[in-house]
Amino acid sequence: MSGNSFGQLFKVTTFGESHGEALGVIVDGMPAGLDVDLEVLKKELLRRAPGQHSVHTSRKEDDVPEILSGVFEGKTLGTPITVIVRNTNQRSGDYDALKDNYRPGHADKTTMMKYGFRDHRGGGRASGRETLARVIGGYFAGLIIPEISFYAYIEEVAHFKISNKPDHSTDRGEINIPDKKMTDEVVAFLKECKANGESAGGIISLSILNSPGGLGEPVFDKLKADFAKAMLSLPACIGFSVASGFELAKLPGSKMSADSKNFGGMEGGISNGEEIVLKMAFKATSTIGEKAKAGRHDPCILPRVVPVVEAMAKIVMADHFLRQSAYDSFHS
Amino acid sequence: MSGNSFGQLFKVTTFGESHGEALGVIVDGMPAGLDVDLEVLKKELLRRAPGQHSVHTSRKEDDVPEILSGVFEGKTLGTPITVIVRNTNQRSGDYDALKDNYRPGHADKTTMMKYGFRDHRGGGRASGRETLARVIGGYFAGLIIPEISFYAYIEEVAHFKISNKPDHSTDRGEINIPDKKMTDEVVAFLKECKANGESAGGIISLSILNSPGGLGEPVFDKLKADFAKAMLSLPACIGFSVASGFELAKLPGSKMSADSKNFGGMEGGISNGEEIVLKMAFKATSTIGEKAKAGRHDPCILPRVVPVVEAMAKIVMADHFLRQSAYDSFHS
Amino acid sequence: MSGNSFGQLFKVTTFGESHGEALGVIVDGMPAGLDVDLEVLKKELLRRAPGQHSVHTSRKEDDVPEILSGVFEGKTLGTPITVIVRNTNQRSGDYDALKDNYRPGHADKTTMMKYGFRDHRGGGRASGRETLARVIGGYFAGLIIPEISFYAYIEEVAHFKISNKPDHSTDRGEINIPDKKMTDEVVAFLKECKANGESAGGIISLSILNSPGGLGEPVFDKLKADFAKAMLSLPACIGFSVASGFELAKLPGSKMSADSKNFGGMEGGISNGEEIVLKMAFKATSTIGEKAKAGRHDPCILPRVVPVVEAMAKIVMADHFLRQSAYDSFHS
Amino acid sequence: MSGNSFGQLFKVTTFGESHGEALGVIVDGMPAGLDVDLEVLKKELLRRAPGQHSVHTSRKEDDVPEILSGVFEGKTLGTPITVIVRNTNQRSGDYDALKDNYRPGHADKTTMMKYGFRDHRGGGRASGRETLARVIGGYFAGLIIPEISFYAYIEEVAHFKISNKPDHSTDRGEINIPDKKMTDEVVAFLKECKANGESAGGIISLSILNSPGGLGEPVFDKLKADFAKAMLSLPACIGFSVASGFELAKLPGSKMSADSKNFGGMEGGISNGEEIVLKMAFKATSTIGEKAKAGRHDPCILPRVVPVVEAMAKIVMADHFLRQSAYDSFHS
Repeated sequence: MSGNSFGQLFKVTTFGESHGEALGVIVDGMPAGLDVDLEVLKKELLRRAPGQHSVHTSRKEDDVPEILSGVFEGKTLGTPITVIVRNTNQRSGDYDALKDNYRPGHADKTTMMKYGFRDHRGGGRASGRETLARVIGGYFAGLIIPEISFYAYIEEVAHFKISNKPDHSTDRGEINIPDKKMTDEVVAFLKECKANGESAGGIISLSILNSPGGLGEPVFDKLKADFAKAMLSLPACIGFSVASGFELAKLPGSKMSADSKNFGGMEGGISNGEEIVLKMAFKATSTIGEKAKAGRHDPCILPRVVPVVEAMAKIVMADHFLRQSAYDSFHS
Repeated sequence: MSGNSFGQLFKVTTFGESHGEALGVIVDGMPAGLDVDLEVLKKELLRRAPGQHSVHTSRKEDDVPEILSGVFEGKTLGTPITVIVRNTNQRSGDYDALKDNYRPGHADKTTMMKYGFRDHRGGGRASGRETLARVIGGYFAGLIIPEISFYAYIEEVAHFKISNKPDHSTDRGEINIPDKKMTDEVVAFLKECKANGESAGGIISLSILNSPGGLGEPVFDKLKADFAKAMLSLPACIGFSVASGFELAKLPGSKMSADSKNFGGMEGGISNGEEIVLKMAFKATSTIGEKAKAGRHDPCILPRVVPVVEAMAKIVMADHFLRQSAYDSFHS
Repeated sequence: MSGNSFGQLFKVTTFGESHGEALGVIVDGMPAGLDVDLEVLKKELLRRAPGQHSVHTSRKEDDVPEILSGVFEGKTLGTPITVIVRNTNQRSGDYDALKDNYRPGHADKTTMMKYGFRDHRGGGRASGRETLARVIGGYFAGLIIPEISFYAYIEEVAHFKISNKPDHSTDRGEINIPDKKMTDEVVAFLKECKANGESAGGIISLSILNSPGGLGEPVFDKLKADFAKAMLSLPACIGFSVASGFELAKLPGSKMSADSKNFGGMEGGISNGEEIVLKMAFKATSTIGEKAKAGRHDPCILPRVVPVVEAMAKIVMADHFLRQSAYDSFHS
Repeated sequence: MSGNSFGQLFKVTTFGESHGEALGVIVDGMPAGLDVDLEVLKKELLRRAPGQHSVHTSRKEDDVPEILSGVFEGKTLGTPITVIVRNTNQRSGDYDALKDNYRPGHADKTTMMKYGFRDHRGGGRASGRETLARVIGGYFAGLIIPEISFYAYIEEVAHFKISNKPDHSTDRGEINIPDKKMTDEVVAFLKECKANGESAGGIISLSILNSPGGLGEPVFDKLKADFAKAMLSLPACIGFSVASGFELAKLPGSKMSADSKNFGGMEGGISNGEEIVLKMAFKATSTIGEKAKAGRHDPCILPRVVPVVEAMAKIVMADHFLRQSAYDSFHS
């Protein structure tokens, strides 16, 4: 009810404030007997970590995941898997000025409206840092559906737009833009943004291949509905579409139906076995001006959001896969 | 788990196939002692009914709601409210050709993938007809939050776009376009579509006024996330944004943050007390060609979707209002 | 949250007040393609109906179930199954005296404490009549697990106690006591109770055979915990035990462990594949004195509760069966 | 769905295997701004800890709770509270013999039936050690309902039975038996049990004072039903009753209704504002013989279960208190 959990059969519950003792996640509903590879998990976390790219914040976060439960001798037990990451980088004193200073577009003011109390040292639960718990959840979700392939990438940043649709094997380069020329342009642009205390938003595209048909429920838990919730639950996400939804809405029915690609891999909200394509819009962060120049803020969060988008999609798909599996013996 | 319910404290569960005996809804979590006005409910249903507008399907649906439980002497009891609507208009024989004929873009094929069995006489649970149960749910949700105002309208149809943003008192005209000139143009256009067996999609905008601040939860159940799920659970909905999300994503942070209207009434996913603005993209229906000319299909579903969009928004807001109310005595 | 639903994957939601328009149930999470036999369902309802036995209330209830959704051409669709039963027997005026008259041991007073408003014509949702919706739910649950056998019976009434444990094929006689001698004694005793305006309670025992092992979850959703909740949710139920729990608690560990029958078919709260045995205590109804003599009240509800106990057990088992099935492909 | 969570608005999710890295709990749905006193929490844990009483296991468990999230400057934030306790006492090698050795009455065999894999070093999730997470949850639940008083005690051990009902201020003595004479007899008896490798079960009684009326929902989530589930989810619990349910079932209705004490504080499953009385039966542990003599097993778990019973009751009451609070502004 407090909205810290996502999923039904496969469920992740995240906890932790950005400047508290630790962040973490409980992954519940895992099958037993699956192999867990901590090194692969660490690599996923590194994809989300700050300081990986030349245009990113210089904060160094030692995000060391520790598994507290649910794994024994390298295999899942079927019991809840708890993973925590200590917050080692709280510079005390840094954030005191924020106590009575609500940043526009952040949750500072609304958190006070809601609770009448908050941890003013940072974004608390609303911080982008919470998303590392989702990446951990996504890693475990992926173990359930290893045959399904997820590939997210940046399609647009500010006025820059990718020219060709990549496939799942295309190298995503330094900042998750699978296009060398656009990468160079955006890197230069973002360095300029950084110097000017400016920030940029954009669009991330996600392709899912090898999904089985029949996933998703016919009414409220349509696959597209659960994807939409998953994505809009991400900080700074302000738009979601199946394929290029807002453009496709302009097409006449004859054109819309002429190409099954326009359905984005779902009909009636249920997967049809074809490629699933989703697009998500993210706004430029509100941290601008002198504060943004100071060093600990990204001019553009999209490169770091790409693995988080994949993680959320994996969680949605693993959940619906298990939900459908419960009926396998009846429906086949 | 089967996705026929929506909401946590305030929960609607819908049931019924488009061509079965009846459709209906259980509205659970209602406060006791609220006045129920069946005439107002019928009026809401009429807004969604076919045959209301000159461009609409000529099917006549006698959607007579019957309250089976939860209301006594005109007041809610606090127990589950059940309302059913009989399906009186099943022309037997009409749909037999559809048995092995999957309509592209509909749930026909994916329903078979999922269940291996279906009611081939119509869209079953995926039918737009299911949304009348949501309108009933929305009526009761509205009783919980009477001070909050909801106003949805069509902003775009095909290449037509509204010129001015209306306010909540603007007359929405014949087809829920609060702009006389655009209404005339779209009516003419849709008549042409109908004659040609063509269909059109578009964009619906929703404005919510007088929302209290502090609604929504900080992580997965952000208000924007629950709105997104609510809207993408609607048939034909293929896009969702907070304000003009996909366009705002192009703005630099300095411009984005300069006007609080850009936040769409939510910061950190929690309502900030300002106007909430959402936009939803709907595709043109896949029923085209000779079948669409035949008489029982709308060339554009958007006019009838407007009250459904309002109903879903009311359900989301009533649910979050009750969720927050549980903590009122602690947080104030 | 309002507690009108039971189960996770297989979920029943009941609705309706005892003296309202109708009672009913939504059965959600059914597999598709299962055969539905309305005659069998009616027979189950008849087992619970009043007026079946010589010692029972003379009220005649025409409990005619009507299926509104989820079944097509005699088979389940996988969509929510809605079944309603009209209340045809409300004698208006009968209950007016109850408006400001709270019956001790009934929900009258506490319903007012909770809601500040109630349908004073009867027990509302707390009425025993609500349990017919559970019997309908139990019928559909049974379709999922046809190989599992459920057999409930009366073991004790007042000071009468059955002498031998019956097996699943033992005839349960007129009032669900599978012992001819005890049946005769209890029938005589209850007629005397009726004449004196007295009522009697007792104990119902339930045996489940052919359960697979591995059902139930290790912590909060232990099979025994969900059985306990299911049974204590029944009106008048005031006790639950695994096997003869309260007596077994007196045994030393050496004796307790010497016979696996003492575990009641569950170890660590998970089914072990052996016979499951549960016992439930029901209090004598509080309707006594002149009111009870008047004709419309049973001196003992236990004979009619027996099929309800079986129904609740079926719902618990079907739910846990589906929950475990979701992992079948991983755990085998 | 995996049953590691309990509660709706106030929800605890526990994690951790008995011999894994750590155990812990997420407490979700806490109001913000409540004072947290770690010393009081530690005292609660100590009540459950082994080695507190002369008759208990000599294992020393350093159960040091660490709060990872949800508390800031000594106050709750309204965000999920995570508390972990490291397992510091795993004697490696001790349990290897158990790998293919299923203890009767334990979850060893059924865990294998369920998952096909287990942590053979101990009881895993089924271990009594998991209950320390519940005690932590109970501490936080208590903060929500400080005016309600909970008092559990041992009423019976083997053939010993307490002679007088204590009140909430009665000292519970060394082993939670608020009767000096019985305490002495049971201590002597349990020492004998220990020497003989024998174990004993018994009955715990719980009294709740100062509950508001109106808590509990009328159908499946009756207060008694949620208590029953809470208690039967405890290891070794094999019976539950409202007041002395199994004995009260023998009473005629006239006697049953003559004394409102017999209703155990609930009518129609909803609290009536009077004293709530529950009784729970616990079996003797199955660890007997040479193994039990060896030193690390309690001859009777009941003294340590008393605080766990109180914790579970607090969780149930806090949850229902918040559920009812959501409607306070409507129902008053």
